[in-house]
Amino acid sequence: MKFTSEQRFDDGVLEREFTLGDIPGILWTPASAPAPLILAGHPGGLQKMYPRLSARARHSVAQGYAVATIELPGCGDRPRSAAAEEARADLRRAVQAGEPVGDDIVDRLVLPLVDQAVPEWQAALDALLALPEICGPVGYSGGVIAVGTRLAVVEPRISAALLFAGSFVPRSIVEEARQVTIPLLVLLQWDDEGNDRQQALDLFDAFGSKEKTLHANMGGHTGVPWFEGDDGNRFFDRHLR
Amino acid sequence: MKFTSEQRFDDGVLEREFTLGDIPGILWTPASAPAPLILAGHPGGLQKMYPRLSARARHSVAQGYAVATIELPGCGDRPRSAAAEEARADLRRAVQAGEPVGDDIVDRLVLPLVDQAVPEWQAALDALLALPEICGPVGYSGGVIAVGTRLAVVEPRISAALLFAGSFVPRSIVEEARQVTIPLLVLLQWDDEGNDRQQALDLFDAFGSKEKTLHANMGGHTGVPWFEGDDGNRFFDRHLR
Repeated sequence: MKFTSEQRFDDGVLEREFTLGDIPGILWTPASAPAPLILAGHPGGLQKMYPRLSARARHSVAQGYAVATIELPGCGDRPRSAAAEEARADLRRAVQAGEPVGDDIVDRLVLPLVDQAVPEWQAALDALLALPEICGPVGYSGGVIAVGTRLAVVEPRISAALLFAGSFVPRSIVEEARQVTIPLLVLLQWDDEGNDRQQALDLFDAFGSKEKTLHANMGGHTGVPWFEGDDGNRFFDRHLR
Repeated sequence: MKFTSEQRFDDGVLEREFTLGDIPGILWTPASAPAPLILAGHPGGLQKMYPRLSARARHSVAQGYAVATIELPGCGDRPRSAAAEEARADLRRAVQAGEPVGDDIVDRLVLPLVDQAVPEWQAALDALLALPEICGPVGYSGGVIAVGTRLAVVEPRISAALLFAGSFVPRSIVEEARQVTIPLLVLLQWDDEGNDRQQALDLFDAFGSKEKTLHANMGGHTGVPWFEGDDGNRFFDRHLR
């Protein structure tokens, strides 16, 4: 893990870009150390996502958390996979034709992403927890919900997860969800036109966790209300402190 | 409105029983006055509900709210209606036989209750808002969700409602729900065996409010997690302050 830039904001938040091998990432840390860590998931494209990611991160850093994110495989400046590009084109064709998006397309699009991204998040976790300014426990917050679900199953260092519904979920991931036992808060935008609401509700139903909460709101895909930021911090306060 | 008993708790909360005509009720007020009012709905039977109602009320009074509740028609010591008793018996038979509860039974059970209870809550509101220690704005918090829905439609003094799913909802009330425009927080116990989850989701979908939030949790019908009490207070803080 190599830090490549560093910026300190007026509110004391330190933002550092890093690379982990050829994967770019960003780490936000508070003045108080060591801080428990929240991994911030996103749909890919760090530069495009930066405004929303940094706002979310700094909101959590203000509550004493360190927040880190890495670029997803095939997104931003990372090399594209021909198979993923083909699946994405098939998805676009189906959506434009008003056809249902078949399981086959979802599997080809999402499963290789999950298979590649999850070990990368785990490698990032190794590197981040080796920093003196970061301690456990660790939370995961954000989308892609299939990545967060797999991480919650395979990574015992993650103690709680705030998962954003709103992306396609392969059926095999719904089955994996039954193995999740950590506390969950699932965010669903009820009127998100690009999202299959029933699929999100089925996934929420499948999670094996005894403590799981669903928060559904209006406002469209990117219109998560501001108070969910506070609710998310309180969720992590209950489980990471 | 006649106060019939009075008790001051160590935390400064004043609890007074009252009657409004022949309807019994309870009012909890904080030391700081005047306080905005939360009407506390419940499934009927004030004495049986008292432990949960008073815990909820005192949690809100600690945040500076006045809380009031009245007995529902045909519940507690109030006179039974033969038609409601018959509908309740039909409901019991259907449930025991493992049959679906028909719309006819739900309508006969719930609609007369809504028709009678809502004007009573409005009369209570008249009396309560005439007290110097109570001011607007007003919120409604609790079940029966059909009562809360009708109140939200017809009573302009109610500015926000926290509605507990978990009781039968006539189809005509789902239609009325489209007229609701005030901010809503709907609580749903996901694994409530006595509750039709899909009906609750359909009702949430129907509400016309631009700001509506659904919180679904595990824990069975009476197992609403403690943190929802805090979330409820914060919901009212956003809309009644």
